[in-house]
Amino acid sequence: MRLSRYFMPTLREAPSDAQIVSHQLMLRAGLIRQEAAGIYAWLPIGLKVLRKIEQIVREEMNRAGAVEVLMPTLQLADLWRESGRYDDYGEEMLRIKDRHERDLLYGPTAEEVITDIFRAYIKSYKDLPKNLYNIQWKFRDERRPRFGVMRGREFLMKDAYSFDVDEAAARRAYNRMFLAYLNVYARLGLKAIPVRADTGPIGGDLSHEFIILADTGESQVFAHKDLVEMGAPGPDIDWDGDLQPLVDQRTRLYAASDEMHDQARFEAEATPDERMTARGIEVGHIFYFGEKYSRPMGAKVAMPDGTERFVQMGSYGVGVSRLVGAIIEASHDEAGIIWPDSVAPFGAAVVNLRVGEAAVDQVAEQAYQALTAAGLDPLLDDRDERPGAKFASLDLVGVPWQLIVGPKGVAEGVVEIKRRATGERQSLPLEAALKAITG
Amino acid sequence: MRLSRYFMPTLREAPSDAQIVSHQLMLRAGLIRQEAAGIYAWLPIGLKVLRKIEQIVREEMNRAGAVEVLMPTLQLADLWRESGRYDDYGEEMLRIKDRHERDLLYGPTAEEVITDIFRAYIKSYKDLPKNLYNIQWKFRDERRPRFGVMRGREFLMKDAYSFDVDEAAARRAYNRMFLAYLNVYARLGLKAIPVRADTGPIGGDLSHEFIILADTGESQVFAHKDLVEMGAPGPDIDWDGDLQPLVDQRTRLYAASDEMHDQARFEAEATPDERMTARGIEVGHIFYFGEKYSRPMGAKVAMPDGTERFVQMGSYGVGVSRLVGAIIEASHDEAGIIWPDSVAPFGAAVVNLRVGEAAVDQVAEQAYQALTAAGLDPLLDDRDERPGAKFASLDLVGVPWQLIVGPKGVAEGVVEIKRRATGERQSLPLEAALKAITG
Repeated sequence: MRLSRYFMPTLREAPSDAQIVSHQLMLRAGLIRQEAAGIYAWLPIGLKVLRKIEQIVREEMNRAGAVEVLMPTLQLADLWRESGRYDDYGEEMLRIKDRHERDLLYGPTAEEVITDIFRAYIKSYKDLPKNLYNIQWKFRDERRPRFGVMRGREFLMKDAYSFDVDEAAARRAYNRMFLAYLNVYARLGLKAIPVRADTGPIGGDLSHEFIILADTGESQVFAHKDLVEMGAPGPDIDWDGDLQPLVDQRTRLYAASDEMHDQARFEAEATPDERMTARGIEVGHIFYFGEKYSRPMGAKVAMPDGTERFVQMGSYGVGVSRLVGAIIEASHDEAGIIWPDSVAPFGAAVVNLRVGEAAVDQVAEQAYQALTAAGLDPLLDDRDERPGAKFASLDLVGVPWQLIVGPKGVAEGVVEIKRRATGERQSLPLEAALKAITG
Repeated sequence: MRLSRYFMPTLREAPSDAQIVSHQLMLRAGLIRQEAAGIYAWLPIGLKVLRKIEQIVREEMNRAGAVEVLMPTLQLADLWRESGRYDDYGEEMLRIKDRHERDLLYGPTAEEVITDIFRAYIKSYKDLPKNLYNIQWKFRDERRPRFGVMRGREFLMKDAYSFDVDEAAARRAYNRMFLAYLNVYARLGLKAIPVRADTGPIGGDLSHEFIILADTGESQVFAHKDLVEMGAPGPDIDWDGDLQPLVDQRTRLYAASDEMHDQARFEAEATPDERMTARGIEVGHIFYFGEKYSRPMGAKVAMPDGTERFVQMGSYGVGVSRLVGAIIEASHDEAGIIWPDSVAPFGAAVVNLRVGEAAVDQVAEQAYQALTAAGLDPLLDDRDERPGAKFASLDLVGVPWQLIVGPKGVAEGVVEIKRRATGERQSLPLEAALKAITG
């Protein structure tokens, strides 16, 4: 993308009501613009990052056997009356009346809708297990929206729902999501800790939150260091096999956020050296809740012996738009955002320091074409701006590599490359520079 | 995808309230499920088609120089008060109050939001031209939603907005969209006719609708045959060059839908042999409306001489979810949907006629792996079902190729391939069959 034709508005200062660093940086780097309290428009580079996170989540869901659907944003209130949640949900639910005075709502989650879809089509144990997910905009009418996309009102969520014949099968479905989530966070360059969680308004008796470590995090997390250092299981595990050992390996180590923390147990289960206490951000939440929705809504399957049984359900949420903020909280410095390569809006930026000087333009263009051909989706900074302004905005936006082309270097046959994460710079001939970037 | 693990619920009969063929087929083939009047959930294969159409639209927008953003679904009523449309829009606008009694609405279109974004960041003629688009869910509270996704309430729309310094530049922006739209429809396998249109509630003085031909279409279209037969301009035109001749070549030929039709002019401008009258479906609408929004909302840029000027705007809409229905209206037979290859949910289906018989399973698996490796994203029908049921559901769903593996063929060293569009069948050795499909 040629920056002269793009739309990447950066701001010198963040509005004063942006209290946390990710919110400030997302506004300054031109990722989002606030349209109303807790409601944001996604500007081009913000949208690119959002879509990359979404795609990683999608790929890991598919790998774990979940099937994608898309539920509408607006839902019928009647479905929530069936489950009994319509009155319980409180003021966070955005209730809407249409022109015919029918009660709709903007879905804050979709257990009711998916249970309704399930019961319409799936009648036999033979069709199980099923895990249906969607990545769709949700709305929760927070009393006090704040922290940008971290606690917005309109937000993008991946929500998956599993349906199984019995508790043992439901547990297998839960385990698949538990491990798939760890793979998602690993691909996003995040250290995620699964902690036992309260089930809250979703209900049920088994639940984990996934908390990523960030100094600026909203909650305190207490965990055994071995759990923190344990890697994700990786994509190549046998998703149809017995995943319980991989889950147990993690859940037997102490981990809790403040609300569930038990200091005495922490001290009993970990030596002082093994104890880690840190700040964290919740970026996922999984639940097993059995028949909480299937029973009131009549979602059941015929068993081999002809009897019918309510299906055992779980639900699994990842805050996709929240992750954009969470990644920034976990990875930034004073100059701006430091994106992991996997979600960076551009793989590299070619910085032309003397736009209009033929020899410099030519090398910059050549570098841009080569990086494009290598699939890096580069940005070409061809703006008529001071070098300092260019470096500042590219550091702010967090492009992982800068390839800098200036008149002095071109005369000497070299360009400079800079790695955003480390600040490391090197002068190299163009070919070597391209090789260093494309690996 | 193995069908035994997928979710592709097909119905023997469509609900009786589905009046048109695309609505019937979308329900029967399991593309969508109605959640409320005019509000649909997208089931797996429906979602796949929707995403493929969306991606084609995105690629052609990007090629024509538009930049993608994403606006929220909910908008502030105050912005619409600025433009004067809040009271004008009528009952189709879904008005919402949040918990603090602030007026929101579910965006039916986004001229106000994008103009607000523009005026916040863009201040100079140097930053123009700009064309910002998004593909987002919209809501129009139709009095009588019907025809499935063709006239739904919650629908996916690509809406683009151009900003230019003067009318000549705005006309160039308009021309780029005019031609990009023709390329979109051509990639979707559709014959699209641009007709002069009424500007309606968007306002402005230059507007075209794009109508695709389908016998079951909602409107009558009258056009010069040369226009109908004229191909799309193709992706390789010079998007920065003078596109006026390519537009003139098309607009000088008579074309109108019923509302703008002038029979006397039609007869004057086309001989009887050159006149075509057919049914059609509107699948896109583009507008040039100058300062209609930029003036009341104060969207202006500084010119080289220091004066300020209101920007000239246009907007450009494609009904992405509507296109799913429109393609089906244009391409189906008695057995079901006939997808163009470019948007088919799967490139091919391998039909195993004797699941559990080792030799048959093995050939089916080999075919499935080979088609996967070739990038065709095949479906493997590994259900324990009668052959007739398998063929019926694959014909209904409209997979472009079936590769049929049965015990008799395997014994003879052949498989059968069937092209959905023509019904043509051939018995071939596996390698030759794969080659025929992958081309």
